[in-house]
Amino acid sequence: MTITKPSIPKGTRDFTPLLMIRRNYIFNTIRSVFEKYAYLPVETPAMENLSTLMGKYGEEGDRLLFKVLNSGNFMQDIDFNNVTSNKLALKIAEKGLRYDLTVPFARFVVQHRNDLIFPFKRYQMQPVWRADRLQKGRYREFYQCDADVIGSTSLLNEIELLQITYEIFQRLGIAVTVKINNRKILAAIAEVIGFPDKITDICTAIDKLDKIGKTQVCEELIERGVPQEAIDKIDPFFGSWKTNEEKLKKLSTYIAHTEQGKKGIEELQTILEYAEKLQITPPEIDITLARGLNYYTGAIFEVKACHVNIGSISGGGRYDNLTGVFGWENLSGVGISFGAERIYDVLEELQLFPATLSEPIKVLFINFGKNEDIYALQALQKLRAKEISAELYPDRTKIAKQMGYANAKGIPYVIMVGEEEIAEQKFTLKNMETGGQQKLSIEEIIETISSF
Amino acid sequence: MTITKPSIPKGTRDFTPLLMIRRNYIFNTIRSVFEKYAYLPVETPAMENLSTLMGKYGEEGDRLLFKVLNSGNFMQDIDFNNVTSNKLALKIAEKGLRYDLTVPFARFVVQHRNDLIFPFKRYQMQPVWRADRLQKGRYREFYQCDADVIGSTSLLNEIELLQITYEIFQRLGIAVTVKINNRKILAAIAEVIGFPDKITDICTAIDKLDKIGKTQVCEELIERGVPQEAIDKIDPFFGSWKTNEEKLKKLSTYIAHTEQGKKGIEELQTILEYAEKLQITPPEIDITLARGLNYYTGAIFEVKACHVNIGSISGGGRYDNLTGVFGWENLSGVGISFGAERIYDVLEELQLFPATLSEPIKVLFINFGKNEDIYALQALQKLRAKEISAELYPDRTKIAKQMGYANAKGIPYVIMVGEEEIAEQKFTLKNMETGGQQKLSIEEIIETISSF
Repeated sequence: MTITKPSIPKGTRDFTPLLMIRRNYIFNTIRSVFEKYAYLPVETPAMENLSTLMGKYGEEGDRLLFKVLNSGNFMQDIDFNNVTSNKLALKIAEKGLRYDLTVPFARFVVQHRNDLIFPFKRYQMQPVWRADRLQKGRYREFYQCDADVIGSTSLLNEIELLQITYEIFQRLGIAVTVKINNRKILAAIAEVIGFPDKITDICTAIDKLDKIGKTQVCEELIERGVPQEAIDKIDPFFGSWKTNEEKLKKLSTYIAHTEQGKKGIEELQTILEYAEKLQITPPEIDITLARGLNYYTGAIFEVKACHVNIGSISGGGRYDNLTGVFGWENLSGVGISFGAERIYDVLEELQLFPATLSEPIKVLFINFGKNEDIYALQALQKLRAKEISAELYPDRTKIAKQMGYANAKGIPYVIMVGEEEIAEQKFTLKNMETGGQQKLSIEEIIETISSF
Repeated sequence: MTITKPSIPKGTRDFTPLLMIRRNYIFNTIRSVFEKYAYLPVETPAMENLSTLMGKYGEEGDRLLFKVLNSGNFMQDIDFNNVTSNKLALKIAEKGLRYDLTVPFARFVVQHRNDLIFPFKRYQMQPVWRADRLQKGRYREFYQCDADVIGSTSLLNEIELLQITYEIFQRLGIAVTVKINNRKILAAIAEVIGFPDKITDICTAIDKLDKIGKTQVCEELIERGVPQEAIDKIDPFFGSWKTNEEKLKKLSTYIAHTEQGKKGIEELQTILEYAEKLQITPPEIDITLARGLNYYTGAIFEVKACHVNIGSISGGGRYDNLTGVFGWENLSGVGISFGAERIYDVLEELQLFPATLSEPIKVLFINFGKNEDIYALQALQKLRAKEISAELYPDRTKIAKQMGYANAKGIPYVIMVGEEEIAEQKFTLKNMETGGQQKLSIEEIIETISSF
């Protein structure tokens, strides 16, 4: 027999129990909030037809798609000469792994349009795969957690997503800053400075203001063909306007005379007004926020964790033509995506994971042999009936070894049962942290454990 | 812009909300029982190195693996002449999609041996992919839900897995029959009839006894090179022994003189004895149970649902050398796998899905316009604080349309708020089933809804 050295593909990860429990804590928190806000779950297959995926993420995206080789005799009728790897790939691979949840969701909405009820509020939490270059904190398999409302243009959806965002991070104990912008503001700025067709370049460049600073942004704008005179006109928008009120006032001065500017300002104002009425922390207007993506048409959100230097942990916005490419034009939607991996890093760095997550198993019964084990198993049935996670060490081995097992697994209570205990119908409960021992009935044990 | 016709690869599925909610009900039930029995979650990547997967599932399995094309210029240095599709696949694809959870778990255990605490009890619930021929009820992407204990030879593990099995199906409301056998019994039979080296053929053939009947099994045995004289000797084992007691007695007569037979009988007896002491329904001994798989070395389980003609919905057994191929010999384990798709089919056919699953959202607030919507949003905060899933219709549209939305989504309560309600600080609650309406405070509404 050939021995296979155990390994996994680069950029992928195994999740051991502690990691899983912590990840599930994040997923469960996000899910429970999504569900409370009446978002319903949806899942799509890991593999999509490449025709669904190709061309949706730009040239770079096409390259980063994992392509799945056709089954059977895939070589048949293929000419391997004079063909590049990229072209050949499409001939021998019809399927690819999901690159994000957005495109599959758009495909899903159009495909199931007759079975869905609109406005359609769905959430989706699934892994995605990208053949990205490897670097610290970047993976080739990672989860996305998305919530979207599709088929409604109401700003109440934006407000709901804000509420969801605040509630998720409040439950996780993460203090956050939510930034908000509106694509219409950006479009108005491009219009006012006289280069409406350069909006994409302008957005992409000013999106980097936070990271690379004004000088480099200006350089990049010039590289992208935006002339100096136009850049001079952008300058006031880079000003350090402080409060939301000041920002709205300045924006009114500079862009309210354009249709887009007026609309964008109104939308921001409405959202802030609702936030106030609902006593939600107002999101901070940031007119440099563009989130690189071109498909946003209205609100743009971004969430950063306070007290930690980690990029955005959540973001989203409104798009008006997500499904156009699948044949359904002008269906408006708004969505938000939570980055589980970054949220994990924040919780870890700020030590915000609840301590109880390290104690998924509450009780270990020490195995003292037959008779004792049946007595223990009967008691276990009672603990488990109360939804207490508990186990009997399966092997009859040294007590020190069994205690070591409890310690290593972080099990807070150990129960010992000998002849004496059986005779008295009691159990010796040992608190593994304090070392204290008590002889108790099973009912008393349930009370002790549950009160923790 | 080219319009892409929305479609998904054959054999894969989208899951719309109702399907998802029902599937999650199954997964959550299984998960909560696994966790109560102190099994901890583990996940492995969707893609494994093909070196991990190839050769582990037989030739047929190798063909059914989905292979993932290498990224970048995968054609470099490849000779496309005089090469078959199978051979070429291995040159241009280093990774493949997970085919089951067992092999990745074995790989995981060996790879992380220094970080795991043994005996290691893990559960894993993830999709697997197989390029299987398409037929009704068979998918190319489907979930497996496995629980295994590894690093313990104690029969207490088998008993625990039995308890888990019964509890899961009891929670799901599915009446089941659990069958049990032991590979050692099968080995002893092969020994007694004089063909110990034919055990695999004998097992594979008699495993089909249920499906194809005795005559065809005997024909298959002859085809597999088991001579008629040996088949004659198997004959008594095909006898219609009724109770577990009778079976154990007959087995004692026929095979207890062999070492394996004696051991196998003892193991069955021990399991039945514990089941009795713990007041668990005793599993039914079935010496024709082999579950095709060669890697079982001790107990073999299989679960069938009563009152429905669907194959086994769960199965498992003990294996003694799962990790050998990854370089760790003689590590004993025992596991059980639950088939989510088949369990789904059983629940659907027997109409066992709880009705509440069709009502994930409890309340819809009708949107009557501004002022009303803020009042509704404030009330929504209170409902959601009680973990009640509720929403406000986002658009200001016709009431009939909004009512239709509530109906189509199976929302049981609709709340209407007009000027009158705001003045009185009340809400008109409409029960969508009875059509009855009441004017109530938000606290009274919470009480009404929660009491359902």
